[in-house]
Amino acid sequence: MRVDEQTARQLLSSLNFKDGLVTAVVRDWRTKQVLMVAHQNEEAFIRTMVTGIMHYWSRSRKKIWMKGETSGHIQRVRRVYLDCDGDSLLYDVEQKIAACHEGYFSCFFRRLRKGKWQIYLKRRFNPSEVY
Amino acid sequence: MRVDEQTARQLLSSLNFKDGLVTAVVRDWRTKQVLMVAHQNEEAFIRTMVTGIMHYWSRSRKKIWMKGETSGHIQRVRRVYLDCDGDSLLYDVEQKIAACHEGYFSCFFRRLRKGKWQIYLKRRFNPSEVY
Repeated sequence: MRVDEQTARQLLSSLNFKDGLVTAVVRDWRTKQVLMVAHQNEEAFIRTMVTGIMHYWSRSRKKIWMKGETSGHIQRVRRVYLDCDGDSLLYDVEQKIAACHEGYFSCFFRRLRKGKWQIYLKRRFNPSEVY
Repeated sequence: MRVDEQTARQLLSSLNFKDGLVTAVVRDWRTKQVLMVAHQNEEAFIRTMVTGIMHYWSRSRKKIWMKGETSGHIQRVRRVYLDCDGDSLLYDVEQKIAACHEGYFSCFFRRLRKGKWQIYLKRRFNPSEVY
C-alpha cells in the first residue's frame, strides 16, 4: 500500500505527534502476529506512506532508518490503522525473513511463565551471519 | 495472570524504561485483535503484575490510572510478552465491554482506504451513556 506525497502530507493532520513522535505497532499482515514496536516522526511516516516500505525514527541514533537497510529484512506495508487519539498507528506488513535483529520472526519472543521470561519462538536466522 | 510483588520487582530489571516509560500494546486474549497502546512507568507495571488488572501512566494527566476506573471496562491480564530491547510489553487481556472511550472494542477503529481514514468497526456502547 502506497499513497502519493500530497495525500501522505494531508494524513499528517490526523496524527497527534508527542515529542515529535507517534508509536508504530507492526503486525504480520497474514497471521496478525505482533512483530515489533517502534516510533515515527513526520518524515518517517511520509517516507513509509510514499514508498510503501516501513521507515522509523531511531530514538537512540536520532535518525530515520528503513527497516531492513542492513539486513535486507524489509517490511512492505499492506494496511494501516489509526487509534482514537491519533498518537499510535498499527501497520500490517509483509515481513521479509524476520523482524527481530536477534533472529526471531517477532521481537516479542519472550513470554512470562511462572514469574520468568521464557523464549517461546524459534530463531529464523543466525544474527552473526546477517549483521 | 498475577505475580507476587517481589517477583514483579525482579521483573523490572528486564525492562528498559525510556524517560521512565515502557510502551504497552494490548490485545484481546482470544482473537489477538490489538485493542490499544499506552504507557507504563515502574509503578503502573508493578500494580498491573500484582493485581492482574491493567494500569497505565497517563502522559497528559501525569498520573497512574487503572483502565476502566470510570467506565468499568477493565482489562484482566492473561499473558505478557517482552520485546528484544525491553522497552515494549505486549499484553493479552480479557477486555470488559470495549477498550475505546469512543465506544469501539478497539481504539484502532479507523483504517486507511483510498487515502482516507475509514471507520470499519461498529460501536459497542454509546460513550455519552458511560462517561
